[in-house]
Amino acid sequence: MIGVVAKLTVAEGKNAEFEEVGKELMSKVKANEEGTLTYQLYRSKDDPQTYIFMEEYASEDAMKAHGATEYFKALGAKLGPCLAGRPQIDRYDIIE
Amino acid sequence: MIGVVAKLTVAEGKNAEFEEVGKELMSKVKANEEGTLTYQLYRSKDDPQTYIFMEEYASEDAMKAHGATEYFKALGAKLGPCLAGRPQIDRYDIIE
Repeated sequence: MIGVVAKLTVAEGKNAEFEEVGKELMSKVKANEEGTLTYQLYRSKDDPQTYIFMEEYASEDAMKAHGATEYFKALGAKLGPCLAGRPQIDRYDIIE
Repeated sequence: MIGVVAKLTVAEGKNAEFEEVGKELMSKVKANEEGTLTYQLYRSKDDPQTYIFMEEYASEDAMKAHGATEYFKALGAKLGPCLAGRPQIDRYDIIE
């Protein structure tokens, strides 16, 4: 199992648009990706412009399949203009 | 729902001990905490000394209850000496 924490800084005034697209993305992931076990958007309690996608994948293949979907590419392209900087993507191996 | 990412830097040579205590903690949480929905230890793919606990709680109360358990205090005291620095604890509100 693989864990991912994708930290995103959203530009001032773009929160509502960012959250709407994020919710659409979560909905598509839940409907289509058996190997994506967690895919949840969260907003920082300390900084309202900081968000994470908390993600868990059953395998490397499941993670790659997620990134290759048409909806991920399309919605990712809509999220990009809402951001104030580059995403920070950290990847982890499960300890079990 | 509340998300937490607790990032921990483990001292060189302490990985095995840290992981054993971490696994015991996960086991206790799964057995005892209905309101803790995710509590999973991960190791960074980029830096073998960096770990996270990826955590999701049903409520603030569930998060507080977790921190107040005797096993969290006892095992947390065992994790401390394995660390090379202060933990970085980030807390988030769910977007749904």
